[in-house]
Amino acid sequence: MKLATLRNGRPDGQLVVLANDLSRYVSAGRIAPTLQAALDDWQAHEPALSALAAQLDAGAIAGQPFDADLALAPLPRAYQWIDGAGYLSHLERVRTLKGSKDEELQSTRPLLYQGGSDSLSAPTDAIRVTDPDLAIDFEAEVAVIISAVPMGATREQAAAAIRLVTVCNDVSLRRLVVDDLQNGFGFFHAKPSTSFAPIVATPTSLGTAWRGNRLHLPLRIEVNGTLYGQPNAGADMHFDFADLIVEAARTRSLGCGTIVGGGTVSNRHDESLPIKPDGIGFACIAEARTVEKLKYGRARTPFLKPGDVVRIGAMSPEKSVFGDITQKVVLA
Amino acid sequence: MKLATLRNGRPDGQLVVLANDLSRYVSAGRIAPTLQAALDDWQAHEPALSALAAQLDAGAIAGQPFDADLALAPLPRAYQWIDGAGYLSHLERVRTLKGSKDEELQSTRPLLYQGGSDSLSAPTDAIRVTDPDLAIDFEAEVAVIISAVPMGATREQAAAAIRLVTVCNDVSLRRLVVDDLQNGFGFFHAKPSTSFAPIVATPTSLGTAWRGNRLHLPLRIEVNGTLYGQPNAGADMHFDFADLIVEAARTRSLGCGTIVGGGTVSNRHDESLPIKPDGIGFACIAEARTVEKLKYGRARTPFLKPGDVVRIGAMSPEKSVFGDITQKVVLA
Repeated sequence: MKLATLRNGRPDGQLVVLANDLSRYVSAGRIAPTLQAALDDWQAHEPALSALAAQLDAGAIAGQPFDADLALAPLPRAYQWIDGAGYLSHLERVRTLKGSKDEELQSTRPLLYQGGSDSLSAPTDAIRVTDPDLAIDFEAEVAVIISAVPMGATREQAAAAIRLVTVCNDVSLRRLVVDDLQNGFGFFHAKPSTSFAPIVATPTSLGTAWRGNRLHLPLRIEVNGTLYGQPNAGADMHFDFADLIVEAARTRSLGCGTIVGGGTVSNRHDESLPIKPDGIGFACIAEARTVEKLKYGRARTPFLKPGDVVRIGAMSPEKSVFGDITQKVVLA
Repeated sequence: MKLATLRNGRPDGQLVVLANDLSRYVSAGRIAPTLQAALDDWQAHEPALSALAAQLDAGAIAGQPFDADLALAPLPRAYQWIDGAGYLSHLERVRTLKGSKDEELQSTRPLLYQGGSDSLSAPTDAIRVTDPDLAIDFEAEVAVIISAVPMGATREQAAAAIRLVTVCNDVSLRRLVVDDLQNGFGFFHAKPSTSFAPIVATPTSLGTAWRGNRLHLPLRIEVNGTLYGQPNAGADMHFDFADLIVEAARTRSLGCGTIVGGGTVSNRHDESLPIKPDGIGFACIAEARTVEKLKYGRARTPFLKPGDVVRIGAMSPEKSVFGDITQKVVLA
């Protein structure tokens, strides 16, 4: 089953059910007005939403053409957004950057940070910055939305709590990371609003692409139409989503509708930008710059600047499974 | 106007309006079912809620007896919980502790951390821990709930966004602070669920106790019936709430219903525990221990242990303005 949240003038938008081919949608308002409401009573609502999707697929309901440009983030505001660090090669590459710490590299227990979840950006929202010189970077990630998880949850409980899967862009202002991590109480100013793809899908609807608590699909990332990366989110993911949820629930329970990010997708290789059409590349600019520094003595790929457009999607094989995130950088 | 959220079996509870003397309440369900719903359309709802409160005070509505034990946190789950560090003497005292960093002390721009807001504890909820040896501490704070604030907001915009005031207990597991701040991405495991007093009040309803974007009342803190502190939240608050909101909105907008904490209340003095009935004392144990170390060469006041009960309230003069937070430490 695939769901989306469409603009309706209210902060939480309107939950809709999509046809399996993403061509059409029908309002889920008679079952649950919003995605959070559906999650709050998933046992009751999930079968009804699935039945609606089946009717749409069978043609018993005509539905309306789906336009991803009308989508908000699946949860336009959420009660929790936790981002993990599942891919060690991402940590290895960014830790060599100024301001990142050696201790960031942890392979025994995943690092997590508490992100702001009060206003999650729509897939087509601008990346708004007040200063063009903050080393603006994208970070392409897989994210899951979970049901309530008790404190001290097991891996089995964690895996069973995964309700929906999507991709997100955890925008980072690299120039502010140093202050946040070394002089402050953790990420804050360096992490403005994270954006999400228009569509969330149940793990079962993803077939074999979802296995071992990982999404086995490449994330395709373009900047201004140029391919920057297509790393596979299922490869080199040292900590899977069950691991990340278990770690998040070490000292506290997790509320229903918590979003957990898997961290910037990163595969082990030593290519640099530009990559070939079948290359792997990077899911953030900081990693590309690190590889360039090692190879050429200096970083060549600039961070994002106002006017740049970044596009992110999980591909299977040529279809963007959750729809694309397409964001332009805009000076506020 | 004073509001509370009562248990009704739903995650967000039931919004009620209180009589000014806190003796009685009436459901606000016909205006807004929940506090978040009231905040989402405050311009429309605030006058209606105020009118209901006036009817209750005039006896035109009988209402029902208010029992604070039935209260949830005013926002049992919120879209954002940001905790600031408004009191420099708190930072000065805790920075001498092992694991805290010198750089924590910042007097030009306030430190902030992004807290978990997915499940905020009721005033009488237990402090649940899986390990009794985590150096469990309370932190008594003032908190405000705000309307939406744009990125780059001015002090005037920030001050005008303050809708409601209350007190909270930002529970800390001191033993986990080192890992979170030095080896991680900021506070995470060290900060389990924050608890809130049962009542929120509009700034105007607080009269002269609310001025200069500060609450000028002592927070009274007892552990197992013994007075630990009664520092005045209006004294020595270097960064007021407008400052904290401006800083939080530096690189991003803040969603409606964001809760901003003022940091552990802390007054400058060199008394140690036990304090006299008219003493000042401390709003967290870590500060008391630092003063003891300086004075006696070792910390004498233990952190909380299972079975301990901490009680926190803002007093005017003998009345607990927002109702008490009363939490027992329980081994989960």
